[in-house]
Amino acid sequence: MQTPAFILERSRQIEEALDRLLPSNETIPQSIHRAMRYSVFAGGKRLRPTLCLEAAAAVGASEGEVIPVACAVEMIHTYSLIHDDLPALDNDDLRRGRPTVHKQFGEAVAILAGDALLTRAFQVLGSLDGGGEILNRRIHALREIGDAVGTVEGMIGGQVVDIESEGKEIPAELLHYIHSSKTGALIRASVRAGAFMGEAAPHELSALTEYGSKIGLAFQITDDILDVVSSAEQLGKTPGKDRSTRKATYPGLYGLDESRRKAKQLVIEAVESLDCLQARGENLKTLAYFFVERAA
Amino acid sequence: MQTPAFILERSRQIEEALDRLLPSNETIPQSIHRAMRYSVFAGGKRLRPTLCLEAAAAVGASEGEVIPVACAVEMIHTYSLIHDDLPALDNDDLRRGRPTVHKQFGEAVAILAGDALLTRAFQVLGSLDGGGEILNRRIHALREIGDAVGTVEGMIGGQVVDIESEGKEIPAELLHYIHSSKTGALIRASVRAGAFMGEAAPHELSALTEYGSKIGLAFQITDDILDVVSSAEQLGKTPGKDRSTRKATYPGLYGLDESRRKAKQLVIEAVESLDCLQARGENLKTLAYFFVERAA
Repeated sequence: MQTPAFILERSRQIEEALDRLLPSNETIPQSIHRAMRYSVFAGGKRLRPTLCLEAAAAVGASEGEVIPVACAVEMIHTYSLIHDDLPALDNDDLRRGRPTVHKQFGEAVAILAGDALLTRAFQVLGSLDGGGEILNRRIHALREIGDAVGTVEGMIGGQVVDIESEGKEIPAELLHYIHSSKTGALIRASVRAGAFMGEAAPHELSALTEYGSKIGLAFQITDDILDVVSSAEQLGKTPGKDRSTRKATYPGLYGLDESRRKAKQLVIEAVESLDCLQARGENLKTLAYFFVERAA
Repeated sequence: MQTPAFILERSRQIEEALDRLLPSNETIPQSIHRAMRYSVFAGGKRLRPTLCLEAAAAVGASEGEVIPVACAVEMIHTYSLIHDDLPALDNDDLRRGRPTVHKQFGEAVAILAGDALLTRAFQVLGSLDGGGEILNRRIHALREIGDAVGTVEGMIGGQVVDIESEGKEIPAELLHYIHSSKTGALIRASVRAGAFMGEAAPHELSALTEYGSKIGLAFQITDDILDVVSSAEQLGKTPGKDRSTRKATYPGLYGLDESRRKAKQLVIEAVESLDCLQARGENLKTLAYFFVERAA
């Protein structure tokens, strides 16, 4: 499946806005800004901000108002990758085909660059551009994203349990907790934050929430599968890492075939949940198919 | 000088509110919440949140509305201590007389606990309790605090330059940049964020800003002096650390006597700048004297 044109266009929009919202490489102190940009502009898929923008478009939000929210989500995602890759956590040397931030800039700057992207994301979410009503929506988005990356059923919580489960046999419920907190929560929040920027009716918000939850899990299963079946070149990071560190994964627990079946089933359900949006849900449906097809 | 009663009362208020705003030790995953509470309830001086509350009181803010902002500032300060102490940064084993967070909980949990406190602070600043007008003020505070802890003349920027200057001879201007960004900015922002929560007139806001800038620098010089002259027991952390790591400090650049004179002079100027507040500025004046007297 070729990358659909709207996804390429979204990536372009997002990169342009990220470029605007981050201090330049020449801003003092240069090392931290270079590290931030090195990681943000490393060729990521921009899945989360694209979901945010498309969810917002599906409920009639003004694009210009959503872009900063989408960028904040991507900054937070990037911060989490930088910190995950650190020696004390996953200890990865390679990310998106390049040395990880701590390999390139040293561990101290990597820790601070992660901190800085998290901080910058909240600064952007709290910025006053646009005035009263927009601010109110953006604060709704801030709360949603804040919860998704926090310690209670959010990204940090999932990361802690993931680390503490390494090398242990864990039950399926715990694997589900790790996936839904560590990666699922931010993906769902990206969709919901987009919905808050428009005028989503309650039934539309629940449809988008269900969609977000299901594709969040589908994408994580897909990543687990790719970790098993890909070469380093295809993956852009060290493959087989999950198995070598004895991480809990779907293929590890259910096998490859059942994991593929599960991911496809989740995409079908996610897409079905958008029926109430009719034609306005088309791009979100395409996104779901496109990102999960990678592991087919 | 005995600790003034109002400072003790502020500490009590702040600790009670922090206890309410942080997940309990029993919340899953327990390790991260225990690490967060271990560091937040380690007996800090609560200087920043006290400044925030007193600045707010001086311009007639409602106390209940300011408390969450004050707590957010303290969470951010604590996050910065946890990350500063990490092996890749200052590599400190001792803080406030106890093992640092990475010594007690491991490096991975320490990195994530710092991330979590930063996240929680912004969640609290973006919370909707209180409705429209309060939200607007809180967002002003969020912006102020976000700038103060960011990379451009904020805490992270100062920390980066501090690390990169270790072991080098640096000019006085660079030392000033490090101090004003790394610690000064958040202290000034604590005062200004408090002022935003009330109805500070423009001349009152500039008076408080000048006060905040000057005591921020005075406190940093005081800390530098204490690092030289105190024992580990008095200090609660490894003393002489600055010299052994060849950190840039005031006593290193100007000597102890001149540093003491400079700190006192800054306090006098800070106090003078509050004259327009008349009696409402009394507690802020007392705070300035009290915290700098430690190094007299």
